[in-house]
Amino acid sequence: MGIVLGPNQYGKAEVRLVSVTRDGDTHSIKDLTVSTSLRGDLVDTHLTGDNTKVLATDTQKNTAYAFAKLYGVHQVEDFALRLARHFVAGQAAITGARVLVDEHLWQRIETNGHSFTRSGGEIRTAAVTVDHDRAWVVSGLKDLVVLKTTGSEFHGFPRDEFTTLAETDDRVLATSVTARWRHSSDEVVDWAASYAEVRRVLLSTFADKHSLSLQQTLYAMAEAVLLARPEVAEVRLSMPNKHHVPVDLSPFGLDNRNEVFHAPQSPYGLIEGSALREEAEDAGLAWYSIGEF
Amino acid sequence: MGIVLGPNQYGKAEVRLVSVTRDGDTHSIKDLTVSTSLRGDLVDTHLTGDNTKVLATDTQKNTAYAFAKLYGVHQVEDFALRLARHFVAGQAAITGARVLVDEHLWQRIETNGHSFTRSGGEIRTAAVTVDHDRAWVVSGLKDLVVLKTTGSEFHGFPRDEFTTLAETDDRVLATSVTARWRHSSDEVVDWAASYAEVRRVLLSTFADKHSLSLQQTLYAMAEAVLLARPEVAEVRLSMPNKHHVPVDLSPFGLDNRNEVFHAPQSPYGLIEGSALREEAEDAGLAWYSIGEF
Amino acid sequence: MGIVLGPNQYGKAEVRLVSVTRDGDTHSIKDLTVSTSLRGDLVDTHLTGDNTKVLATDTQKNTAYAFAKLYGVHQVEDFALRLARHFVAGQAAITGARVLVDEHLWQRIETNGHSFTRSGGEIRTAAVTVDHDRAWVVSGLKDLVVLKTTGSEFHGFPRDEFTTLAETDDRVLATSVTARWRHSSDEVVDWAASYAEVRRVLLSTFADKHSLSLQQTLYAMAEAVLLARPEVAEVRLSMPNKHHVPVDLSPFGLDNRNEVFHAPQSPYGLIEGSALREEAEDAGLAWYSIGEF
Amino acid sequence: MGIVLGPNQYGKAEVRLVSVTRDGDTHSIKDLTVSTSLRGDLVDTHLTGDNTKVLATDTQKNTAYAFAKLYGVHQVEDFALRLARHFVAGQAAITGARVLVDEHLWQRIETNGHSFTRSGGEIRTAAVTVDHDRAWVVSGLKDLVVLKTTGSEFHGFPRDEFTTLAETDDRVLATSVTARWRHSSDEVVDWAASYAEVRRVLLSTFADKHSLSLQQTLYAMAEAVLLARPEVAEVRLSMPNKHHVPVDLSPFGLDNRNEVFHAPQSPYGLIEGSALREEAEDAGLAWYSIGEF
Repeated sequence: MGIVLGPNQYGKAEVRLVSVTRDGDTHSIKDLTVSTSLRGDLVDTHLTGDNTKVLATDTQKNTAYAFAKLYGVHQVEDFALRLARHFVAGQAAITGARVLVDEHLWQRIETNGHSFTRSGGEIRTAAVTVDHDRAWVVSGLKDLVVLKTTGSEFHGFPRDEFTTLAETDDRVLATSVTARWRHSSDEVVDWAASYAEVRRVLLSTFADKHSLSLQQTLYAMAEAVLLARPEVAEVRLSMPNKHHVPVDLSPFGLDNRNEVFHAPQSPYGLIEGSALREEAEDAGLAWYSIGEF
Repeated sequence: MGIVLGPNQYGKAEVRLVSVTRDGDTHSIKDLTVSTSLRGDLVDTHLTGDNTKVLATDTQKNTAYAFAKLYGVHQVEDFALRLARHFVAGQAAITGARVLVDEHLWQRIETNGHSFTRSGGEIRTAAVTVDHDRAWVVSGLKDLVVLKTTGSEFHGFPRDEFTTLAETDDRVLATSVTARWRHSSDEVVDWAASYAEVRRVLLSTFADKHSLSLQQTLYAMAEAVLLARPEVAEVRLSMPNKHHVPVDLSPFGLDNRNEVFHAPQSPYGLIEGSALREEAEDAGLAWYSIGEF
Repeated sequence: MGIVLGPNQYGKAEVRLVSVTRDGDTHSIKDLTVSTSLRGDLVDTHLTGDNTKVLATDTQKNTAYAFAKLYGVHQVEDFALRLARHFVAGQAAITGARVLVDEHLWQRIETNGHSFTRSGGEIRTAAVTVDHDRAWVVSGLKDLVVLKTTGSEFHGFPRDEFTTLAETDDRVLATSVTARWRHSSDEVVDWAASYAEVRRVLLSTFADKHSLSLQQTLYAMAEAVLLARPEVAEVRLSMPNKHHVPVDLSPFGLDNRNEVFHAPQSPYGLIEGSALREEAEDAGLAWYSIGEF
Repeated sequence: MGIVLGPNQYGKAEVRLVSVTRDGDTHSIKDLTVSTSLRGDLVDTHLTGDNTKVLATDTQKNTAYAFAKLYGVHQVEDFALRLARHFVAGQAAITGARVLVDEHLWQRIETNGHSFTRSGGEIRTAAVTVDHDRAWVVSGLKDLVVLKTTGSEFHGFPRDEFTTLAETDDRVLATSVTARWRHSSDEVVDWAASYAEVRRVLLSTFADKHSLSLQQTLYAMAEAVLLARPEVAEVRLSMPNKHHVPVDLSPFGLDNRNEVFHAPQSPYGLIEGSALREEAEDAGLAWYSIGEF
C-alpha cells in the first residue's frame, strides 16, 4: 500500500511592504501585503528533509523588498508578475509560483505633498500564477461594502416545512464585495485604468440594477464587467448577504416602514458565482489554490 | 471583616442599529453601534438577586431602536444624550447612565440617491454620561490612520545600557488616531460642524507640524483643537507609533534612503496624552469608565 | 460574443447553534458554527431573478435548528451529512450541497454536571458535500497551535543573491495546524474515535519526528495518519511556520542560546501539502470550494 | 487663556516574548505579551520635542528581552514588578511605570519533554504600577469563557413601555470572564498558587451559585475570592452576558425546552462590578489607566 506526496506549495505569507517614491516635494506611497508560494520538485524536502531545492521563505521575503527598491512597485499586477517570474526563472526545480498582493489604499491630506490618510475598507488585490510557459493574472478587490436602501425585492422562492421567511418587494440590500477577474492573456494592460473601470462598473451596476435576488445582482455585476472590459475573460464574485432586519416596533405601538434595522454580524447569506465568456480560454492555473470563489 | 460592593454598572453593548430616512428619492443612512450602561442603587441584585431596580438590558436595546423611530438619530451626540436622559429620568434607582455610540460612515454612490459604500477605517464616536444634575459630552473619532513620509525626527533621547536605537532626522511617522474631546458644557452645539472642524484641525496639524517626537505631534494636535474650538475644554489622544522600519538592503548591495519599509503589526510605541484649558471646569463624570486615555 | 454563468453556489454562513442534552443531572453541550451551500440549476435566479428553485438561505438556517431538535447533533460529520442529504433530496433543482461545521469544544467544570469552560484554541471541523449519487466526508481540525523547543533543524537550502538566512541545527518550531482528512467512503465510521486517533497521531508525530524542514514534518504527520487509520484516503495540511526569532542580546553583553525569542505575528512561512494513498479513489467533489489546501 | 498638558504616558505595547528554560531534557516555556508605559516629567518632549527625558520605547522593549535572559520570567507578577522598578529607578524624570503582561498558556504533549500545545482561550494577566514610594500589583485573567445549562433565572425586573423580555426561571448562562484582583500590599506572595486558587474559586462559584441575575453571580464570585484569599483586597469583574436564545421551533410543530439555542455575537449584556474589603487600603495608582472595570 503506497502513500505518496500530493499537491503542495510553500512560501512566505503576509510580508508587509511600504514603498515611498519622491518627486520633489510630492511623495507617493504604496502599501502592500505580499504572499509568495512556490511549487515544483519538492519530494526531497518532504520525504527526507533534503532542502537542496527549497528557496528559503526568508529569501522570498528579501526578494520582495529588494525588488521594491530595484524596480519599484508600479501596479500590483506588475509587482506580482515580476516576482513570480523571477522565482520560476531562478531554479529548475521550481515549476510554478503564486504571488498574492493586497494593496491598502491611501488618500492625500491636501495640505502638503507628503501626508496621507489610509482609506480603510476596500483593498485592491492581485493573484498571479506563473509556470515556465505562461502567466495568469487575476485582478480583484475585497472588503468593498455597499448598501442600497431600496430597489431590492425577494419573493417567489419555494416554501417547505421549514420556511418562515416573509416575501418582500422592498428591502435593504447590503453586501461586502469580494471580486476577482481573470485577464484573457498575460499581456500587460493598463492595470490602473482597468481596475478603476471594473470597480466603477461593479458599483454602478450594484446601485442601478433593480434586484430580485442577490444572485441576479451578482450576475449582473459580473456580466457588466465582461461587457465593458474586453481584457477580462471571467469574473468571480463572493457576496455575503449582510442582512438588515427591520426591527419589530409593534409592541411599542410603532410601525416600521423600512426605517430602523438590526444588522447582525452573523449568520449571513453567502452568494458565490461567476460569469465568463463562452469563448474564453481555459482558466489553466489561474485559480490554483485561490479557490472556486 | 466586611466585604462591600464597589463600583459597578450594567447595560447592553454593541447594539447594531441602522436608520434610513427618505426625502423623496434621496435617502440617508445612519449606521450605529450603541452601548448603554446604567448605574445607581444596585445593591439588591448583587447581594440577593432581587431585580426590582434592574432595567433589563433587553429593554435598553429596545429603547434605542424605538428612539431611532420616534425621534430619529440626528447627530451621535444628540442620540446618546436623549437615550441617557431617558434612562435617568425613568427610574429613581438609576442615578446615572453612560451611552457610547460608534458611527460607521458611508459615502454616496453618485448614480442614484439610495446607494452607498461604507467608508471603512475611521469611526466617529460619542461618549455621553448623565446624572440627575447634568450631562457630560465627549465627542471623538478612532481608527483614523495617518502617515507622513517626511517631516519627522527622533533624537536626543538618553542612552542607557539597553539602548540600541539609532537617532534619525528623517523618518516615516504613522499612527492610528483615537481622539476624544470633552465639551465645556452640556449645551447643544452644532455637533456636525464641530466634529468636521476638529477632524480637519487634527489632520492638518499632524500633516504640517514638524515633528521631533510623537509626543510633540500629539500635544500640537490637541492644542490646535483647543485653540480653534472654544466649545472644547479638553482633548485626549491615544496614538500608537506604527513603526515603519527601513529594510536593510545592504546585503544585496543596495542602499535604502527611506524608500522601502517593513511595517510590523507589533510591537508598537503607544503615546497617550491630553491637553486642557487651565480654566476648564472639573471633568466630573465625563471620563467615567472610558479611562484616562 | 456570449457570456455565461459559471460555477456558483449559495447558502447561509456562520449559523451559531448550541444544543444541550440532558441525562438526569448530567448535561452535555454541542457548540457549532454551521454553513450550508447549495448548487444546481440556478440559471433562472441569476439571469432573471426568478427564485422558483432557490431554497431561501433563511430556510437553510431554520432546517439546521430544527434538525438539532429532531435528530440531535451527535458527531459533526453525522450532522453535516444529514443536513446535506436533506437539501439534495428535497428539490430536483438542487444537485449538490456543501455543509461545513465548526465545533467549539468545551470541558466540564467538575463541581457539578451542568457547568463548562470553553477550551479555546483548537476547533474540530467537518466538510461534507453530497450529490444525488454519493457523499464525501472530510473531517478536520484547525487552530491547533503546537511548538517544540528543540528537535528541529533547517539547513542545506540554496543561497542566491537575496539569501541572508543563517543555517541552524537547533531551532524552535511552532505552527498552527489546519488539517483536513478525506474519508475513503461515505460509510459511517466511529467519527469520534477516528477524530481522537487522528489528532493523537498528528500531535505525537509533530512532537517526536526530528525535523529537517517543516515540509518534512508536515509529510510525516500526514503519512502517519494514513498509516494508522485505514478509513482515511488523503490528508491535507496547512501549517504556517510561526517564526520564533532569537533576540540578539549581544549589544548588552549577553549570549542567547535559544533562550529568549521574539515571536512576530507576520510575516510567516506557509507550508501547504498533502499525502494520499496511491490506490485512493478519485477525490470527486470532496474538496469542492474548500480548496487545494 | 492657558492650555496645559494633562495626564500622559508613553511606552512600548505588545512586545511578544517567548522564553525557554531547560532542565536536562525537560524544557519549560513562558509566552508573554508585554506592554510598558512610563510617566513623569514629560513637558519638554510634548511642548518642544526635547527628548532628554524620554527613554525610547525601543529601549523599553530591549530591556524586557534582556531581563528575560538576565533574571528569567518566573511568574508574570515578578517579571512586571522587576521591569517597572527598573524603569523608575533608572531616571529621575520617570516618576512612575505601568507594566501589563499577558501570559499565553501552554500544555505539554506528554510524549517528550520539549513539545507543547497552546491552551487557547484563557489568558493570565498582570498589571503592575510603580512609583518612587511603592508598587501596586493587580493579577488577573481574561477570555475565560464559561457556561451553565441550568441554575440560572431572571425575573422580577421592572416593565416599562419598551420592555418585551419574558421572565424565566431556567436559562443558559454564559459569559467570558475578565477578572482583575488587587493585592493588599506589594509584598511578594506565591503568585502561582494565589492565581490557581483564585481561578478555582471563580470557576466553582460560577458553577455552583444558583443565579437570579448575572450581577448576583458576579458579586458572589468576587466575594468568594475575598473570603478565600486574604492577600486580595479588591476584585473587579467584567462579564458580558453571552445570550443563548432558545430558537422558536413552534412554526415547525416542535417544542424547545432549552434544547436548541441561537448564540449571537452581539449585542450582549455587559455586567461590570467589584467587591472590596471595607478596611482595604485606598487603591492608590493600582487602577491607573486600566479603568474602572
